Amino acid sequence: MEDKLMLMIPGPTPVPEQVLSAMAKHPFGHRSGEFSSIMAEVNQNLKWLHQTENEVLTLTASGTGAMEAAIINFLSPGDRVLVGSNGKFGARWVELSEAFGLEVETIAADWGKPLDTEQFQQQLVADTEKKIKAVIVTHSETSTGVLNDLETINRYVKDHGEALIIVDAVTSLGAINLPIDTWGLDVVASGSQKGYMIPPGLGFVVVSPKAWQAYQTAKIPRFYLDLGAYKKASAKNSNPFTPPVNLVVALQVALRMMQAEGLDGIFSRHQRLSKATREAVKALGLPLLAPDHAASTAVTAVAPVSVESDQIRAVIKKRFDIALAGGQDHLKGKIFRIGHLGFVSERDILSTISSLEAVLQELGEDSFTPGAGVTAASRVFAQS
Amino acid sequence: MEDKLMLMIPGPTPVPEQVLSAMAKHPFGHRSGEFSSIMAEVNQNLKWLHQTENEVLTLTASGTGAMEAAIINFLSPGDRVLVGSNGKFGARWVELSEAFGLEVETIAADWGKPLDTEQFQQQLVADTEKKIKAVIVTHSETSTGVLNDLETINRYVKDHGEALIIVDAVTSLGAINLPIDTWGLDVVASGSQKGYMIPPGLGFVVVSPKAWQAYQTAKIPRFYLDLGAYKKASAKNSNPFTPPVNLVVALQVALRMMQAEGLDGIFSRHQRLSKATREAVKALGLPLLAPDHAASTAVTAVAPVSVESDQIRAVIKKRFDIALAGGQDHLKGKIFRIGHLGFVSERDILSTISSLEAVLQELGEDSFTPGAGVTAASRVFAQS
Repeated sequence: MEDKLMLMIPGPTPVPEQVLSAMAKHPFGHRSGEFSSIMAEVNQNLKWLHQTENEVLTLTASGTGAMEAAIINFLSPGDRVLVGSNGKFGARWVELSEAFGLEVETIAADWGKPLDTEQFQQQLVADTEKKIKAVIVTHSETSTGVLNDLETINRYVKDHGEALIIVDAVTSLGAINLPIDTWGLDVVASGSQKGYMIPPGLGFVVVSPKAWQAYQTAKIPRFYLDLGAYKKASAKNSNPFTPPVNLVVALQVALRMMQAEGLDGIFSRHQRLSKATREAVKALGLPLLAPDHAASTAVTAVAPVSVESDQIRAVIKKRFDIALAGGQDHLKGKIFRIGHLGFVSERDILSTISSLEAVLQELGEDSFTPGAGVTAASRVFAQS
Repeated sequence: MEDKLMLMIPGPTPVPEQVLSAMAKHPFGHRSGEFSSIMAEVNQNLKWLHQTENEVLTLTASGTGAMEAAIINFLSPGDRVLVGSNGKFGARWVELSEAFGLEVETIAADWGKPLDTEQFQQQLVADTEKKIKAVIVTHSETSTGVLNDLETINRYVKDHGEALIIVDAVTSLGAINLPIDTWGLDVVASGSQKGYMIPPGLGFVVVSPKAWQAYQTAKIPRFYLDLGAYKKASAKNSNPFTPPVNLVVALQVALRMMQAEGLDGIFSRHQRLSKATREAVKALGLPLLAPDHAASTAVTAVAPVSVESDQIRAVIKKRFDIALAGGQDHLKGKIFRIGHLGFVSERDILSTISSLEAVLQELGEDSFTPGAGVTAASRVFAQS
């Protein structure tokens, strides 16, 4: 049905009506007092959202642009880095690091499994000469729905004492608790079309004082993504290059909505949505890709066996106008992913699960009790 | 008056109502069939706008990001380049080239004067060993309102035979005739918030087959702005990273409007707006920064003597809600700039000139005949 699309993919995510209205505002000058006063509010609220006193720098870029900035500003060609890779975006960290001439040591895990924190510990403890300049990790792996144990990995990095910790928080920021200052994370990259509840087009990078020290000697060439220029401009609530003013106005509105809900409210909502989705999927007899103990509360990957996942996606789109994401790379056709981050409510989960049940029945899957998924999800919502 | 802002700066530029409405569309998946079919139309129409059969690649970036992509994909550290610099954006080409380790030979002119094409000829003719790998030029210099003689410079580059020509068309694309294929321009960068009539957030780069050959051996490291990835994705009407889907939908609408007006219509409208603005400013006795023979039809810089330009800007903003741009760097406080590119009509020029007259009178400037500016502009409109 035209205009009935329901976005249940892990980005772009649904956008509230008041944010969409803000998007339609007539552009205005990015060197004006009006823009600076909006940026002042946005910068303040971004710090709140990131639980940090460090600068949160706003780039005109996709999340990958923010990830690139997180590397090229703090490292030099030949620097040794430990990179965790257990999905599409971990693999992207490896590609990015190699593209800029870093000496990459990959700590890999199967897609769908969390990174083994002990492997990080071993490598870091063994590095008595302090050759490892950075540990680079994906927090919530969007491609698999796995949440890596960043807190533990970070603890080993802190024990090492020298290495920076650089984090992809693209699907975790604004969805999953990430206490940047409490943990002492050095560089955290994210993108606007996820937990921020606004359309794609902005990237964000948070930089610790220790990372700014590394910036002083980092030798990878850079200009557009040179964070020093963004820091200088940010201090004046400005931007070194023309920012997408409409997206910034949208961000202003979205951050106000997030503040009204509160961080605890946001994180616990995502936990409820995730738990309800997982319990429902289990009740429907469909295997989950990520184990319970390492489940991202932003996205759930399902690996059906007796029905084809791309067929489920095609039918749920056609019959119920629900967009689910497919698998990436070698998981293509093997999984489907339900995004439940950002502007997603309990009702959205019930809509998705009930539609999924209808699709499974239409596809002749009779191994579950009709209504079991919705019942399981409802039970989670009733309990929490 | 609230919500009465009239944007007469050289970017962001005014955006049509139907484009703003498109901006407020709910995001949808960038890996969907819907998005591909929009990109297919957009890619086709971008080629039409650029007068080229080459790929027009769309980046999530400010214009500076597109400029950076235009350099790092086709050159290697140590490559010798000739860079024209006669304003803020020519200076940016120099900074960019130096940031990536190029050996820069700058051909400079005073801000407000066009580049001397003969200096390019001399350097290119003298380069019998073909050491010059690229000539890098700003077409319309936004900071001064000067239009450089790109056609002549390009002819010398073609006589040289080896060097690529790399062009900043940020304020000329969609405003000033730039026949990319007829002239054989190799790399042309631009940004969405100018002639495209949409808000900032997208950068564009057009790449010739000769430039793609240079790409094969170019050694500056790159990932987010690696145009090879964009080319590959573009062939499938896709994008390597999450694009700002709302801006792409806005672009679709804007390009349809531009096609309805036609290239000739668009370029001649900009010529009329520019001529009327310049004649009006002359009639008011205010000096123009750029000479008539090198005037950009996208933006006009005015260098008032007996009244302060920043005072003019402040009063016209306060009294009439018209935003004019100031000077940049050493021209700060010395000029004001009237942007007349993109979604700007003859009425907008009359509004601006009549308001400017009122402001000059309020500021006690009595050296012009009241009404002279509006009369001069009207005369241009009547004649053309």
